[in-house]
Amino acid sequence: MERMRIRTDLAVEARESFEGSDTEVHGVIVEETYDEQRDIRLTRVQIVSERGAREMGKPMGNYLTLEAPGMAAPDEDYHREISEVLSQHLRELIGEEKERSILVAGLGNRDVTPDALGPKTVSNLLITRHLIREYGKEVMGTKQCNQISGIVPGVMAQTGMETSEIIKGIVEQTSPDLLIVIDALAARSTKRLSRTIQLTDTGIQPGSGVGNHRNSLTEESLGIPVIAIGVPTVVEAAAIVYDAQGSSEQLPPHLNGMFVTPKNIDEMIKQLSFTLSEALNIAFQIREKS
Amino acid sequence: MERMRIRTDLAVEARESFEGSDTEVHGVIVEETYDEQRDIRLTRVQIVSERGAREMGKPMGNYLTLEAPGMAAPDEDYHREISEVLSQHLRELIGEEKERSILVAGLGNRDVTPDALGPKTVSNLLITRHLIREYGKEVMGTKQCNQISGIVPGVMAQTGMETSEIIKGIVEQTSPDLLIVIDALAARSTKRLSRTIQLTDTGIQPGSGVGNHRNSLTEESLGIPVIAIGVPTVVEAAAIVYDAQGSSEQLPPHLNGMFVTPKNIDEMIKQLSFTLSEALNIAFQIREKS
Amino acid sequence: MERMRIRTDLAVEARESFEGSDTEVHGVIVEETYDEQRDIRLTRVQIVSERGAREMGKPMGNYLTLEAPGMAAPDEDYHREISEVLSQHLRELIGEEKERSILVAGLGNRDVTPDALGPKTVSNLLITRHLIREYGKEVMGTKQCNQISGIVPGVMAQTGMETSEIIKGIVEQTSPDLLIVIDALAARSTKRLSRTIQLTDTGIQPGSGVGNHRNSLTEESLGIPVIAIGVPTVVEAAAIVYDAQGSSEQLPPHLNGMFVTPKNIDEMIKQLSFTLSEALNIAFQIREKS
Amino acid sequence: MERMRIRTDLAVEARESFEGSDTEVHGVIVEETYDEQRDIRLTRVQIVSERGAREMGKPMGNYLTLEAPGMAAPDEDYHREISEVLSQHLRELIGEEKERSILVAGLGNRDVTPDALGPKTVSNLLITRHLIREYGKEVMGTKQCNQISGIVPGVMAQTGMETSEIIKGIVEQTSPDLLIVIDALAARSTKRLSRTIQLTDTGIQPGSGVGNHRNSLTEESLGIPVIAIGVPTVVEAAAIVYDAQGSSEQLPPHLNGMFVTPKNIDEMIKQLSFTLSEALNIAFQIREKS
Repeated sequence: MERMRIRTDLAVEARESFEGSDTEVHGVIVEETYDEQRDIRLTRVQIVSERGAREMGKPMGNYLTLEAPGMAAPDEDYHREISEVLSQHLRELIGEEKERSILVAGLGNRDVTPDALGPKTVSNLLITRHLIREYGKEVMGTKQCNQISGIVPGVMAQTGMETSEIIKGIVEQTSPDLLIVIDALAARSTKRLSRTIQLTDTGIQPGSGVGNHRNSLTEESLGIPVIAIGVPTVVEAAAIVYDAQGSSEQLPPHLNGMFVTPKNIDEMIKQLSFTLSEALNIAFQIREKS
Repeated sequence: MERMRIRTDLAVEARESFEGSDTEVHGVIVEETYDEQRDIRLTRVQIVSERGAREMGKPMGNYLTLEAPGMAAPDEDYHREISEVLSQHLRELIGEEKERSILVAGLGNRDVTPDALGPKTVSNLLITRHLIREYGKEVMGTKQCNQISGIVPGVMAQTGMETSEIIKGIVEQTSPDLLIVIDALAARSTKRLSRTIQLTDTGIQPGSGVGNHRNSLTEESLGIPVIAIGVPTVVEAAAIVYDAQGSSEQLPPHLNGMFVTPKNIDEMIKQLSFTLSEALNIAFQIREKS
Repeated sequence: MERMRIRTDLAVEARESFEGSDTEVHGVIVEETYDEQRDIRLTRVQIVSERGAREMGKPMGNYLTLEAPGMAAPDEDYHREISEVLSQHLRELIGEEKERSILVAGLGNRDVTPDALGPKTVSNLLITRHLIREYGKEVMGTKQCNQISGIVPGVMAQTGMETSEIIKGIVEQTSPDLLIVIDALAARSTKRLSRTIQLTDTGIQPGSGVGNHRNSLTEESLGIPVIAIGVPTVVEAAAIVYDAQGSSEQLPPHLNGMFVTPKNIDEMIKQLSFTLSEALNIAFQIREKS
Repeated sequence: MERMRIRTDLAVEARESFEGSDTEVHGVIVEETYDEQRDIRLTRVQIVSERGAREMGKPMGNYLTLEAPGMAAPDEDYHREISEVLSQHLRELIGEEKERSILVAGLGNRDVTPDALGPKTVSNLLITRHLIREYGKEVMGTKQCNQISGIVPGVMAQTGMETSEIIKGIVEQTSPDLLIVIDALAARSTKRLSRTIQLTDTGIQPGSGVGNHRNSLTEESLGIPVIAIGVPTVVEAAAIVYDAQGSSEQLPPHLNGMFVTPKNIDEMIKQLSFTLSEALNIAFQIREKS
């Protein structure tokens, strides 16, 4: 339990921190499937009770984790497959096929490489809301289509405002049916970096993300469903020291506000943001029913 | 009057378009001063009646234009002087010395060089709102201080939303006392480019700016005073052709959506955004009364 | 002939400037094919004599121009087709299938949107020279492979050096077999912008490109073959005025150093640089002979 | 001695790693001065013998380290003072006041925030070589002036070439009298980050810098004096774990290629690159003798 002092944004890691990761935690349902051919592991963590939420340190809801070691390599075809798999799971979370207005928010600091995942993903999305509102659905060449809008709110050091204030204001003005937030996450272990994608319908909690968002972005706070897509791109510096020295000693205070990230983080972010934006662009297309 | 078909965001240019620029226009008061030593020309255009507004094609209010040919050259000391002069006029528009919460919005597209003036200016502002709210005024080392927040909303092609929707949402959530918008403008003549700064208390009108904002950002639409700071960085391509061929002929349609800008626009935007951000940073300091 | 005063980097436009574009110019062979299904027009201009070179204002050699109106639209599949077509013509120019070391130089100013085509294209290339030299060809998973290196030299205002000095130094140190330069060009007409790609085996001439390179990058100056790939992204401001007023009048001097470019140039550059980098990445793969 | 397994680019840290940092190392002269008023500590390490070089793991030469804790804070006036102090020491290293041609190379990866120090510093330099060569010294308004050129070569993953190949080629083509390289460094301790500047006349050694340059940039390899200016912006992840667990255990291999850096590294790099470029711009002015 001591280990929980070190922050992780990943439900799978929170789960593992319990001694003997096979132990059942009350109110937490874990289901794992492995696609051997493509080497993709899917873990579905459902937190179904308040007690489970308390023990996991995460709110009730569904957490889907897709782990693919190959994701760290620059194989374009493989990434397209990941985008396809991801888009299917996104469709499940988004719900049945009907037209909606969806706002995608790319959280994080575009000037800090490992935190730029959200901003870069949004910059590659197919933005359609203004086109459909101006020219009608015909402009999209389909009978049914979603209205997609996007925002890169920046971080508090740049804006002086909470990300949640900005998003809330925009949600109230433009009334989307759904908010999807993309964020770079902090993992507990460097082994997860850039090879794990987490989808959840619980939104964003205070203290999560590379930049530690202070307020929540949830259905409760915003009034519309919130899906969060996160990829761990950093580990807190304290975490790797903690692992090295064991739990009994003091963590050095000068490691606060320091993170660990790979040297080729620029290539990873470029690759991952394409994978995510492609997955979103696919998921946003409404398939005609035959 | 024909000439008015071509757009200008500058009140001084709208004024000049009347035949014989000495003619008085009803409801428009023009006052000009020239600082010979520093080669800075100040033109104050006041539109005081609805008729004046109609004839000028601009809303009632105050327009201050500062013209300084030296501004296009990279002389750091000279730019600091411009920042000082500008900050004084800004203080006049902002009003008496008391603490306020001020939101600065950097309009325009950061990916199109001549339209990046607003985004770049905001990125060099001293943002303080979050610090003062968290640690109190003491953190600023002064008795009185303004709470400064900043936003770079992006353009409609990137967000799918009107800039005005985003700003309005943020204003409603964070309740600033004043909004300042920074924007790259379209001039009528290439001679004005990068050597003219316009301050106005009328906010932003539909159809203004390099990206042609479609909705207004004004006290009427937002409920708080709006000061707009603009620098012309482009001329519509149609305007230079119009000048060349005279008024009688047809403008070629393939020039729609085309603009004219100098080759060294990157250096100009870098220089100008520093000048503006320094002017704002100075203007935002509250001077202690002795 | 008067019209030639206005610069064009495109051989097809130089050709058109002769009265009645059907007239034959001595020493210039023009061949045109049109792919109706994909709406792609290919024009092959061969300048085979010194006299032809003098009349065209371009050196002897092969100029291939690919015109596709659809290229300006963001249709990903269509762009992939253009990349395929382009890669075939590139292979022809590069020559027979054997392993080589190829240096790709992305000319232009990455901070001026319409001039950033070269830098952005190079940033999406698959760079392999260092990998092959360190780990051998096996690392590429093929029997035969080219060693690709890339450079973004910057422009003279940023470096204080001629682009040709930088490239020549790097060529002498790293001894590639072939240089490919990517550059944003100036067209004579706005109708060509972002829908035309020019390939030539004559390299780069003084005064060409958006930034007007002053020295040449040619086989003569560098000692290795030089292929230039260019896309017109601007028109000189003087050109559109010239067209409007006819040839007899004086061009206004304040238009010097001004260019015309579309407002959505950021999207065009993004799209075009992907198309070019994909074409290069495909062309650089050596096909196994069966 | 064991501690030396972990890399540091700082001579002061190499010096400290000897037990009891007061012990004299043969062939190494250390001199320290402290400016109490401005809280700036200057350490001059001279390695004067081959034995000293071997023991320190650094080549013979002069290393000047300027430590100023205030440097991490965004106080513009204080940074200007640092720039002044730094420019004086630079002038000492550059040598007597006479006109020269100086090439400044900004090493590192502009797309990885803590490695972007060099590229960002060069982008703020006053580049003059092309102006002086074109218009003569008069253009600078002084009797004597240095010709400054600048290059941002990129990193091997982007270019496929060693940085040293690119720089060597450019040096041979443009024949500067002096090379100055700016680089982000790896420190041994997070306490040094962003508050330490190292000047040395020994150039760059293999394995130094955030990106671990593999070849040297030295007077020996290039034929002209090489001054290196470095600021530590990262610590190798292995180093902080090593400190935590003591010297006896194995370092986890998954930390290879990982670095530790502060969350506000974007602000630090912005601030530091201004401080360095201002110091260089001041140092490059030739003072008239009275």
